[in-house]
Amino acid sequence: MLHSTVQLNDFRINTLPYMMNDPFTRMKKVKNIIFLIGDGMGFSYTTGLRYFNHNSRKGLMNPTIFDQYFVGTQSTYSLDAKSNITDSAAAGTALATGYKTYNGALGLNSEKQEVPTILEYAKFRGKSTGLVGTSQINHATLAAFAAHHESRENYNEIADDYFDERIDGKHKIDVLLGGGTSYFSRDDRNLVEEFKKNGFGYTTNSIELFADRNEKILGLFAPKELPKHIDRYLTTVPSLSQMTSAALQRLKQNPNGFFLMVEGSQIDWAGHDNDIVGAMSEVKDFEAAFHAAIQFALNREDTLVISTADHSTGGMSIDRNDNYKWNPSVIRSIKSTPAKIAADLHKTKEISSIARHMQLSLHEEDLKVIQSTLELEIEDTRQTLINIINHYSSTGWTTKGHTGEDVPIYAYGVNRHMFSGRMENSDIGRILFEMID
Amino acid sequence: MLHSTVQLNDFRINTLPYMMNDPFTRMKKVKNIIFLIGDGMGFSYTTGLRYFNHNSRKGLMNPTIFDQYFVGTQSTYSLDAKSNITDSAAAGTALATGYKTYNGALGLNSEKQEVPTILEYAKFRGKSTGLVGTSQINHATLAAFAAHHESRENYNEIADDYFDERIDGKHKIDVLLGGGTSYFSRDDRNLVEEFKKNGFGYTTNSIELFADRNEKILGLFAPKELPKHIDRYLTTVPSLSQMTSAALQRLKQNPNGFFLMVEGSQIDWAGHDNDIVGAMSEVKDFEAAFHAAIQFALNREDTLVISTADHSTGGMSIDRNDNYKWNPSVIRSIKSTPAKIAADLHKTKEISSIARHMQLSLHEEDLKVIQSTLELEIEDTRQTLINIINHYSSTGWTTKGHTGEDVPIYAYGVNRHMFSGRMENSDIGRILFEMID
Repeated sequence: MLHSTVQLNDFRINTLPYMMNDPFTRMKKVKNIIFLIGDGMGFSYTTGLRYFNHNSRKGLMNPTIFDQYFVGTQSTYSLDAKSNITDSAAAGTALATGYKTYNGALGLNSEKQEVPTILEYAKFRGKSTGLVGTSQINHATLAAFAAHHESRENYNEIADDYFDERIDGKHKIDVLLGGGTSYFSRDDRNLVEEFKKNGFGYTTNSIELFADRNEKILGLFAPKELPKHIDRYLTTVPSLSQMTSAALQRLKQNPNGFFLMVEGSQIDWAGHDNDIVGAMSEVKDFEAAFHAAIQFALNREDTLVISTADHSTGGMSIDRNDNYKWNPSVIRSIKSTPAKIAADLHKTKEISSIARHMQLSLHEEDLKVIQSTLELEIEDTRQTLINIINHYSSTGWTTKGHTGEDVPIYAYGVNRHMFSGRMENSDIGRILFEMID
Repeated sequence: MLHSTVQLNDFRINTLPYMMNDPFTRMKKVKNIIFLIGDGMGFSYTTGLRYFNHNSRKGLMNPTIFDQYFVGTQSTYSLDAKSNITDSAAAGTALATGYKTYNGALGLNSEKQEVPTILEYAKFRGKSTGLVGTSQINHATLAAFAAHHESRENYNEIADDYFDERIDGKHKIDVLLGGGTSYFSRDDRNLVEEFKKNGFGYTTNSIELFADRNEKILGLFAPKELPKHIDRYLTTVPSLSQMTSAALQRLKQNPNGFFLMVEGSQIDWAGHDNDIVGAMSEVKDFEAAFHAAIQFALNREDTLVISTADHSTGGMSIDRNDNYKWNPSVIRSIKSTPAKIAADLHKTKEISSIARHMQLSLHEEDLKVIQSTLELEIEDTRQTLINIINHYSSTGWTTKGHTGEDVPIYAYGVNRHMFSGRMENSDIGRILFEMID
């Protein structure tokens, strides 16, 4: 919990040891910042998207939307006594505050002291603020921008803080869009009612979201995380780009500007699952949100759009086992995540129902293996499907956790040049503090 | 084979679809170009080097020499009907000529037409030229800069071309340093004598190399590839940075300037072996060569240093199996490649002699497994050692071949800004042609 505005007032940027001085002299103050984080979206994911989009065996691949805005890379490791591979809380904290910290920490430095986040500082400067994501809105990366806890697992307390903590007497976050009704409507406390009483709109589906005209809004579209983008058969769950646009529409009303943080939360989760179908779909959903942010910033002189990952996930590689041929056509032909297909197969107990989910014709042998798992747990079927898809697409994985490779930074607009070259993740937070108007 | 200078004269740069026009207007002509290629050196290798150098569990990691020169990334895929993951020949050709081509092609476009290389064009412009590498000097990536063949396997013919092909009557390459005596001193032809007769110095060890004063030189320090850097107990094999400095010393004599290509050839080979000990050592050797090139270019207004990879190899990841802890200390404690250790163990048949090669104390169980392989082939021992080292260092791999992720570009000096952002590998070749003085 952060109550003192003195702390914010006293904030001084630390030295940036690896940055030249020159860019700083050219740094401008910026009115609006849109910060998008593709959780787990390392280089293999963004390169993979380019292959995935290339529906041909010939010719040059078209650049992705990210490609033309690539400016630099950042190093993701945390300051943790036991671990030199970061988790999302520590990486989120570094990006949000400028301080590297230990794994699991939210808005605390490595001495467990509360440090202000860029979202809080923006509010302190009179700006509007927003958090948008596809996980529960109180999940680690998002929470790192607006809460201070020793453990990311304190979900209820984080939700409480989103309501209770004020900056100069004002609500810390003006727009919250994501999942998490189960944390906001609880037996012990009904935060939804409290938010509504204090003038926030409340919405649980995209129709309400599009109709709502409140400047402050809480939108919770699932009990915890949203369904993965590829698994949504109903249009009542907004896409990440729709949530981003809805947030921008509100935040831009403030003449002092805004800070908006947008997370493609489940790229990482697909990576943890070693699920390339979910990964490519979630990256595309995130790319569309990045595009919406760029569209907003185009032809403005007052806005920075920056996008990066907090770390890479899964040790994903484009090709495996000496094939020299990655097969995104296999991925394109599958229309649901392995989790969704497995759940459906266990409902119907009919192997033929797999055809609803893929245009791909599996070999007799593969179908037999899948069939045999229908007597076991859903998880066995899911893992079998994942193995088959990774085999035919030739997608490699080395872990169900995170990996340490540097990750890309994409930027557009004011001060874009500040993020070129190689930097520490914490440098990004520090630079953002320095440039905010 | 390329004989016509007309082809070179008629060279026109193609449009660069993904580049903004603006940088071109700021592009200067450049006298000297040093182009260094870390074969297989994707982001996991350069990030890995930073971890590898960090001999502590605490604090920020020091940047590598590469880090401060990071400018952009490039996409490596080739134009191949069967394969969307490049080999070194096709990637080398793209970088050397500006044309993407099919896997295996050297200095030919995808229609199998000969296209001029940047090295040839530099010679045509009156500059001196050099090829330096740790493989045989006629191996794919190096050969892509100075030969034109439908297959990279034509090793003898490529060596012949290095001597036979002339540009405006002059030898194409002035400095050749690497491995490959078996291709240059053959039963059917003695290229070494032919080079010497035409005024080239000839050297086979570092002492001769340092003493030599010829402006043109052929240095061949092994029958085929040089021993891996970490396996050299004799100092008679020069390091890549020593070869780079020896080349620069000669090439800089030409008032018209020079083009030098330097390859860290065996980063890739260690990757193919899934050998993290060899990989880190070869990356360090390459980093020192890059440093030597930067030192040359410092405080000059006429030189560009550019370094990149042709592709990534092995699907290497920093951490695997959900450990959240990569252990470079394990790698640092091992003083020979698994191949060298295995060969030594099969010579002595004494498991205790493993202690010569590592400060690491292996578990009883690991030693038993290694012992049991001493009755089998050297390859079994080598693979067992590789598995053990990958286990304890927590290094992940997905293939013994190449992978498709974008790779880093590092640059310093004149026109450095031309390589920022994301580009195609072939764009690099095209831009180099455009800027050469």
